[in-house]
Amino acid sequence: PGLLDEGFALYLADPFDRERNPEGVLNLGTSENTLCFDLIEERLTRPDMNYLQPDLFQYSDAQGIRSFREEIAKFLTDYARAAKELNPENITVMNGCCAVFATLSTVLCDPGDGYLIPAPYYGGINSKMWLYGELQPVHVPLFSEVTDEESHPFQLTVEKLEAALQRAKKQGIRVRALILINPHNPLGDIYPAQLLKECLDFAHRYELHVIMDEIYMLSVYDDITFTSVLSLESLPDPERTHFMWGFSKDFGMCGIRVGVLHTTNHEIQKAVNQLAVFHSCPGPVQHVLSQFLKDRDWMDNVFFPTNKKRLKEAQKLLVDGLADIGVPVLKSSGGLYVWADFRKFLKSQTFEAELELWQKLLDKKLLISPGKAFCCYEPGWFRLVFSNSVDKIYLCIKRLEEMLHTNDAEPVPNNASS
Amino acid sequence: PGLLDEGFALYLADPFDRERNPEGVLNLGTSENTLCFDLIEERLTRPDMNYLQPDLFQYSDAQGIRSFREEIAKFLTDYARAAKELNPENITVMNGCCAVFATLSTVLCDPGDGYLIPAPYYGGINSKMWLYGELQPVHVPLFSEVTDEESHPFQLTVEKLEAALQRAKKQGIRVRALILINPHNPLGDIYPAQLLKECLDFAHRYELHVIMDEIYMLSVYDDITFTSVLSLESLPDPERTHFMWGFSKDFGMCGIRVGVLHTTNHEIQKAVNQLAVFHSCPGPVQHVLSQFLKDRDWMDNVFFPTNKKRLKEAQKLLVDGLADIGVPVLKSSGGLYVWADFRKFLKSQTFEAELELWQKLLDKKLLISPGKAFCCYEPGWFRLVFSNSVDKIYLCIKRLEEMLHTNDAEPVPNNASS
Repeated sequence: PGLLDEGFALYLADPFDRERNPEGVLNLGTSENTLCFDLIEERLTRPDMNYLQPDLFQYSDAQGIRSFREEIAKFLTDYARAAKELNPENITVMNGCCAVFATLSTVLCDPGDGYLIPAPYYGGINSKMWLYGELQPVHVPLFSEVTDEESHPFQLTVEKLEAALQRAKKQGIRVRALILINPHNPLGDIYPAQLLKECLDFAHRYELHVIMDEIYMLSVYDDITFTSVLSLESLPDPERTHFMWGFSKDFGMCGIRVGVLHTTNHEIQKAVNQLAVFHSCPGPVQHVLSQFLKDRDWMDNVFFPTNKKRLKEAQKLLVDGLADIGVPVLKSSGGLYVWADFRKFLKSQTFEAELELWQKLLDKKLLISPGKAFCCYEPGWFRLVFSNSVDKIYLCIKRLEEMLHTNDAEPVPNNASS
Repeated sequence: PGLLDEGFALYLADPFDRERNPEGVLNLGTSENTLCFDLIEERLTRPDMNYLQPDLFQYSDAQGIRSFREEIAKFLTDYARAAKELNPENITVMNGCCAVFATLSTVLCDPGDGYLIPAPYYGGINSKMWLYGELQPVHVPLFSEVTDEESHPFQLTVEKLEAALQRAKKQGIRVRALILINPHNPLGDIYPAQLLKECLDFAHRYELHVIMDEIYMLSVYDDITFTSVLSLESLPDPERTHFMWGFSKDFGMCGIRVGVLHTTNHEIQKAVNQLAVFHSCPGPVQHVLSQFLKDRDWMDNVFFPTNKKRLKEAQKLLVDGLADIGVPVLKSSGGLYVWADFRKFLKSQTFEAELELWQKLLDKKLLISPGKAFCCYEPGWFRLVFSNSVDKIYLCIKRLEEMLHTNDAEPVPNNASS
């Protein structure tokens, strides 16, 4: 298991609670959004949620209940500003995006094949693509230093994709897919439409499947325009372009376990649907989520505006708090986290020193996620999740400050920019 | 996809409904229990079900929420009459027994390995063990004719297991596991304790893992004693004995997607738990099912006694109805179905004729399951599910009668016993 799982297990064993366990582990490591649970809870108590017809408790279509897929298709058509109306037949419902990765990795490629992925990236993808599919990541390393060709840190370019692909070929790895996370995890930035198109063209040139992970699609809190792959007028290779989204992040319900695959490739979908029986969602859950999606008034005027406002506020709170204690962050527009630069607090610019810092923070009962967990190529970066209550953010800053500014963690001068 | 899936898809496309679609497909093919949904529904409306703490909507232990596993451990300890109290640490919760098969097949063996399984058996196991695990079934063929060594039709003996194992070895198949379904699907009978022990001893001799599928454990409607593998005082090979159960059948909630693995093998469980993230259950569902399991009074005095009574009545209704139209069934004690002998209605004693009969019944909008779907070695047997409302059972008999006693399906004399 990776560092993210390891950290989460430590948290589960001793979770912070204001009243019951104030000295417990404070979790800003796991990407969850609890900011709008009050709205979710209120909506769940309305009568439409309670009508549970007997059918929901019996076997149903393993691809997902038809009426639920219809609601998802309408929802994504509008909220992803789809170029054309989505067809419910192209949608498969599974118990989380983990399952979407598991089925795609099994179906798209053969064991041992590789997939290109810009690093840093959500490290859970490694095990999700490996455990059933036995696929290996081919990293496209990104760095914080800005060169002439780039406009910002950790910028992806097609040249970097190309270089990574050629390196993999030389190593004898057959690369079959490209995974892009947009909004990005952990960077929190968004692919400009132009770069997205260039990446799709690149994938098309090499006949790579593209897996677009847009699980943070509606967790954009800046006034920036987000371009979903579904919104592009013409895809270079629609048969090899697969989209995933879920309720975990944008609805703040990681525990409800519902992810969605959209693909127009019938062969791929047929194969995925065969596996979907292993990843199916309870009927009552499909019913309840349908009710959310049907309620446009609530989503348009209550939930999403409030969520965006609260994300923005929480992000600012954390970023300001970090600035106060001398920790800069990368500018971000989407996702539930910031990518923070702790390099000047490392004893040396190594991953050993990064892990040491992580461990010290854990000793102080603060869980954040080290760059290593995201296969970052540059030590000293950490992901901090801000979609938490105000008091937890303050407490995080407090614990950080105590740790970073005690003697043994005295900043060591180094040449890295910050 | 197999015949069971094919039949179910036909049903889903045109489901019978008393008022809205009285000419639709009547489904006595899918093993579901709708007899006690009134009780489930009533129980679901009590206030303890509604208390949904925020944690349930966030990430939790992929092995299953600890408090839910504790309830399952207590429940199985009592209801399976376990030899010793079960440890919640030995339990993994997944989204259905499909997922238990998928993870075990991936973890226990290598692709291409075989598992012994007495045939007929629930045919869905083929794809569940194949799609991720790539394991192949090694059939132990059973027949209806009773010989000197046997006391009843389709009887399993250790000699038959032994013979199948040796045949597989000669074919170069490495057999690594034995799957036993108890109560049996589709036969509806129960393994006597003595035979169960002999099978476990056999497996131990050959170092085979034993997967005990006891998903119908509490759907025993006869006054026969059911022996769960959990109840045995000493297992020949506890490290290779794995137990599965779920809420689908015994609680009549196939659509809730919750299955349970119990194993005392830590290595196996660790590996399964890594995969469990792909098969996790929603937190709110784990909460709701915990409430069921906590309510001993309701289970002991309301649900299970009523369920047993209704199963018994429904079984008798179907068996009597079948007898009236000349269709004998195998004596059964558990499960939701009977194994019915349609051999005298086949044009020839072949699987082609069996499929032809199946198709004709489907043309009459009656879905039952042909023996071929259970890898039966003898054509002419069908599984009929009786855990249905009275009017559906009557209608099934009516449609059967119309079909079987029209001219072109005139009984053809044959020598097979019936």
